[in-house]
Amino acid sequence: MREKLKEWFDSTKTAVMVVMIGLFVVMAMPFSAFAADPSGAETLAQNPQAPIDYVWVLVCGFLVFFMQAGFAMVEAGFCRAKNATNLMAKNTIDFVVASLVFMAIGFAFMMGNDYKGLIGTTGWFLHGANYDVGKYLMFFWQLVFAGTAATIVSGAVAERLKFKAYFLYSLAVSAIIYPIYGHWVWGGGWLAKLPFGAGHVDFAGSGVVHTIGGFVGLAGALVLGPRFGKFGKDGKPRAIPGHSITLAALGTFILWFGWFGFNPGSTFSAHQLRIAVVAVNTNLAAAAGAAVAILLVFMKTKKWDVGMMLNGCLAGLVAVTAPCAWIEAWAAVVIGAVAGTLVVIGVYFWEARGVDDPVGAVSVHAINGVWGLISVGLFADGTYGLCTTSEPLVRGLFYGGGYGQLIAQLIGAAVCITWAFGLGFIAFKLMDKYFGIRVSPEEELKGLDIPEHGTPAYPNFYTTNQN
Amino acid sequence: MREKLKEWFDSTKTAVMVVMIGLFVVMAMPFSAFAADPSGAETLAQNPQAPIDYVWVLVCGFLVFFMQAGFAMVEAGFCRAKNATNLMAKNTIDFVVASLVFMAIGFAFMMGNDYKGLIGTTGWFLHGANYDVGKYLMFFWQLVFAGTAATIVSGAVAERLKFKAYFLYSLAVSAIIYPIYGHWVWGGGWLAKLPFGAGHVDFAGSGVVHTIGGFVGLAGALVLGPRFGKFGKDGKPRAIPGHSITLAALGTFILWFGWFGFNPGSTFSAHQLRIAVVAVNTNLAAAAGAAVAILLVFMKTKKWDVGMMLNGCLAGLVAVTAPCAWIEAWAAVVIGAVAGTLVVIGVYFWEARGVDDPVGAVSVHAINGVWGLISVGLFADGTYGLCTTSEPLVRGLFYGGGYGQLIAQLIGAAVCITWAFGLGFIAFKLMDKYFGIRVSPEEELKGLDIPEHGTPAYPNFYTTNQN
Amino acid sequence: MREKLKEWFDSTKTAVMVVMIGLFVVMAMPFSAFAADPSGAETLAQNPQAPIDYVWVLVCGFLVFFMQAGFAMVEAGFCRAKNATNLMAKNTIDFVVASLVFMAIGFAFMMGNDYKGLIGTTGWFLHGANYDVGKYLMFFWQLVFAGTAATIVSGAVAERLKFKAYFLYSLAVSAIIYPIYGHWVWGGGWLAKLPFGAGHVDFAGSGVVHTIGGFVGLAGALVLGPRFGKFGKDGKPRAIPGHSITLAALGTFILWFGWFGFNPGSTFSAHQLRIAVVAVNTNLAAAAGAAVAILLVFMKTKKWDVGMMLNGCLAGLVAVTAPCAWIEAWAAVVIGAVAGTLVVIGVYFWEARGVDDPVGAVSVHAINGVWGLISVGLFADGTYGLCTTSEPLVRGLFYGGGYGQLIAQLIGAAVCITWAFGLGFIAFKLMDKYFGIRVSPEEELKGLDIPEHGTPAYPNFYTTNQN
Repeated sequence: MREKLKEWFDSTKTAVMVVMIGLFVVMAMPFSAFAADPSGAETLAQNPQAPIDYVWVLVCGFLVFFMQAGFAMVEAGFCRAKNATNLMAKNTIDFVVASLVFMAIGFAFMMGNDYKGLIGTTGWFLHGANYDVGKYLMFFWQLVFAGTAATIVSGAVAERLKFKAYFLYSLAVSAIIYPIYGHWVWGGGWLAKLPFGAGHVDFAGSGVVHTIGGFVGLAGALVLGPRFGKFGKDGKPRAIPGHSITLAALGTFILWFGWFGFNPGSTFSAHQLRIAVVAVNTNLAAAAGAAVAILLVFMKTKKWDVGMMLNGCLAGLVAVTAPCAWIEAWAAVVIGAVAGTLVVIGVYFWEARGVDDPVGAVSVHAINGVWGLISVGLFADGTYGLCTTSEPLVRGLFYGGGYGQLIAQLIGAAVCITWAFGLGFIAFKLMDKYFGIRVSPEEELKGLDIPEHGTPAYPNFYTTNQN
Repeated sequence: MREKLKEWFDSTKTAVMVVMIGLFVVMAMPFSAFAADPSGAETLAQNPQAPIDYVWVLVCGFLVFFMQAGFAMVEAGFCRAKNATNLMAKNTIDFVVASLVFMAIGFAFMMGNDYKGLIGTTGWFLHGANYDVGKYLMFFWQLVFAGTAATIVSGAVAERLKFKAYFLYSLAVSAIIYPIYGHWVWGGGWLAKLPFGAGHVDFAGSGVVHTIGGFVGLAGALVLGPRFGKFGKDGKPRAIPGHSITLAALGTFILWFGWFGFNPGSTFSAHQLRIAVVAVNTNLAAAAGAAVAILLVFMKTKKWDVGMMLNGCLAGLVAVTAPCAWIEAWAAVVIGAVAGTLVVIGVYFWEARGVDDPVGAVSVHAINGVWGLISVGLFADGTYGLCTTSEPLVRGLFYGGGYGQLIAQLIGAAVCITWAFGLGFIAFKLMDKYFGIRVSPEEELKGLDIPEHGTPAYPNFYTTNQN
Repeated sequence: MREKLKEWFDSTKTAVMVVMIGLFVVMAMPFSAFAADPSGAETLAQNPQAPIDYVWVLVCGFLVFFMQAGFAMVEAGFCRAKNATNLMAKNTIDFVVASLVFMAIGFAFMMGNDYKGLIGTTGWFLHGANYDVGKYLMFFWQLVFAGTAATIVSGAVAERLKFKAYFLYSLAVSAIIYPIYGHWVWGGGWLAKLPFGAGHVDFAGSGVVHTIGGFVGLAGALVLGPRFGKFGKDGKPRAIPGHSITLAALGTFILWFGWFGFNPGSTFSAHQLRIAVVAVNTNLAAAAGAAVAILLVFMKTKKWDVGMMLNGCLAGLVAVTAPCAWIEAWAAVVIGAVAGTLVVIGVYFWEARGVDDPVGAVSVHAINGVWGLISVGLFADGTYGLCTTSEPLVRGLFYGGGYGQLIAQLIGAAVCITWAFGLGFIAFKLMDKYFGIRVSPEEELKGLDIPEHGTPAYPNFYTTNQN
């Protein structure tokens, strides 16, 4: 009997279904007493200027959502045709899982009433007093960010992770890892209150989103080990070219486009006209990152490396995400240029250490997420505060702010790395012990599309032996 | 002489040209006296808050327009490479035809001054008093919806319908079928005034757009019959895999993205802060639909079916389109989950009955459009009215609203199905009798791209025998 | 020694690096004294209605940025698989270069304080008094337009231009050619002050962006000469089909979508409710252009030519860009229909003259840019002024405005053609003399992807001999 129960729980479908059903049952709780302002009439009466802020936040949120398509295209483009269906599945399911789980518990952990600076404790299932236009707006915004954090991981673990594991770590990221760290920085938690500078600050999430996603991805890549054929018998890395540069470029453009929601929208208000500065800085960092990355590789190989240019662009975007509201245009160029350099170094660095990150997600998001956090402590120019024009203004070393802000940024970065890598490593190790997270060698060589999904991505085309 | 005239009319080009020229001649009427407010100065003076509403409606309308790209990618992805050019042609021409025809007469039928609850009668060619910023805004919004209704059909009739027929039914949908039914619900017509609940309501068009498009598609699929090879000699359905899962996934993401315009924009005003609730509900239904669809198929086949997940996502979006403004988050999850179930059942249901719907358009749009209409009568929670916070509030069975709203919804759904299927069937039958709507067997086997368009979609790639 | 220095300068990398480093050095100037309003607080205090205008301009600007993805997809789709990586590289680098160079000097030339109607002279590197929310907003808007002008060229010179040359002409377009002409029309320069009609007017840039880009492209195509195999030994043109009609269609939809930012956003204010009229006109011209182009080709070849329909759509969009704010809906249809005709004629015209324009960029942008400028002088109806509802209203020949406006438009068009073609020709000729702008015959036959970039676009697929 006990055996049978265990077996019952072991099977994937049941485990997943239990989670889902549990979730639904709780949600179908007695229909909530309506508190707050579900129609928006009172909110509008109190603040007749609210509509423009709602429009701004929603439209920017839509753009952030659209980044899911960008990640899907970039990852598919940089991976092989035999895993393209799998990557589509992963990049869809992570946002699907994030949507449901973040609504159930993630949002409460992140933005609920603070408990000792550690965690939020209210807002489960958007119930009761959370049936309010302002709360729903906040939820929507935080959700699309949670989904981004979850999706970053998939690039680093591509082409060898079981779909089931993807399902479960998406759940872990969007229910626990992302929202709790997010609470510390954006939910009124302890990092925001560090007694250095203006506390640890991260305007749009170089740390909260990208460092978190990147280091969970690194943990996954380490637990998984490299793909077959990535390293020769001599241990030297070999290039495994992606199957569609056009899709990779399209994905990068979509991400760049979506980032114009990600960064400027993080003011959470259109009344912060600083949004114009944020948009410009975002764009300049992307351009500088792309330019430097392609030039660096050209100097080494005499080839204009498109993949590296695209990653340089994304690296610039990741890095400028934390400082974008607190810097001048020239600083955005410098931050982006450094990011473009770091991503090139990063790709070689990880390869040289036997880490296989198929799309460069670790170099783009983990490394440059950290660089973005640090750059605030250097370049913040003291003209703007925490999403407002009021004090405290954020000021870094180069603008006479001393070391305070830099220290706050370094502490935050260290915590972020430890939290994301630690929990990510535990999660992947646990799953690996429990059911084995890597597909079989036969499946990996054949590609994951048919064994996991039953469908090749491109059945009408002849494909080469993709190893 | 009579013979010759007939022959002259018979030829495609002339028929089409006559329509076009007629259209142009009428448009080139004596330059209209300017009435109303073409510059917008008066409108602004009367309502200084108008700009935010204009921005909201336009930006959401742009997103809805972009759904055309989503439909094109989904349909191409789920069909074979040998028909990809044809699908691009169809998905472009339907919006082209809709734009011109809806401007000429559709808009007048739909939103013109009401005649006995049946039809609108003013606003032809946006002339005269319609040269007004408010009218143009309304036209733009309704046009992108009309274009969506037209484009839904193409999935169901894919891979075998003549391009000419596509041209003509797009015209029928955007000139007659969509706008007249639309008038009944959104133009002040009789369905909106049903003496049950708040009358028949359909917030963003589960019925007006998706049920209409889906049932016209069903009619087309029935008149056409299944594709060669879809059913074996034993009558059993065979899978005909699409040629690009990456494009199908990209298309789904684009549709999901566009739906954030479709649903929240349907307030037609940013002063309805309820837009935040609408956005959240839209997203949750999509996620729930995708999750349930992939899990259901997994339980049956042990494969994570990406195609079904994408269709589950779209099914959730279609279903929540009618109720999105009148429900809580948990209800959106339930509505989406039911939609995900219905789409799986639907696909098997139609296949088992010998209906060939290459991309699942009928299961996604027709079935779930109806489910969406019905769900309003169940889940509407009475916190919000008809695009306003004023009475009458919409309240369904589960929130103490009794059966009134449910009855109104059922009546509307029945009318919608009858109207769309009936007129669609007549249109396809008439065309079939007149010139034969299906391409020849040779053309179908070869693919439509070269015989109809002269251009294969992928001339640089070797393709397999796609049957 | 002199020899060595020359050699040093000759090498690509150094030339490029010198430019980049020089740029950086200047940017890293002593941290600027903050003038103006970097936080936006004062601007908001003076104009509490500013947020809606900022949101409108930014969101529209994001859409215009996204057109980069559209151009990339259209150009790749219409070219061969063996050059797809190259086209991705080009379409990314042009916006990268434009971003950096336009920030450094282009913006100052275009929108800086006017010097005798010829050129702007302030605002270098967005320094000093330009660290202001309003200036950054203006910069962002003008930048995405500059990037569009640069990217138009790439289609005309596709499949044979060296990447280095692309790098450098992007620099020339975004630093000199575009901004100086832009200053004449939009920066308070002499063309705007022509003593005919309301001066030379160009609402959203049929001339400033499209004619400029198109004629620089024509110059490039002429200097380069046609691709191998484009013309037979008898001199007759041969079709070289593009490798992906789906990507071409996707790109067209993205461009159409982005154009809803391009044209309506050019009011630079949401308080101009005329934006609704602009959006409708933009859409109608696209539809009319597509319809006419596909019908014309059908009458000739009995095939529904998708490529020509897509180009017809883009032609309509280009043409309506100048007049979109000053015309009625019916005029937009007529302007688009003429554009659809012109693009068909254009394609045959250039081919007959031995000019090889792989994607039809010259016919779409150069020809129809000019038609758009002229159409203002014919169809402007006198209901709206220069981005305002105030005088002077723009009125063309058909609405009783006499020949004044038409003359202003013709002068502007002539200047635009001369400037763009002249400077473009000089630039390409100079580069050609200096280092040879065309790749070697071997590289061209093999495709540019591997020799220039080291990466084929689709390594997992078998491709045909693409000549």
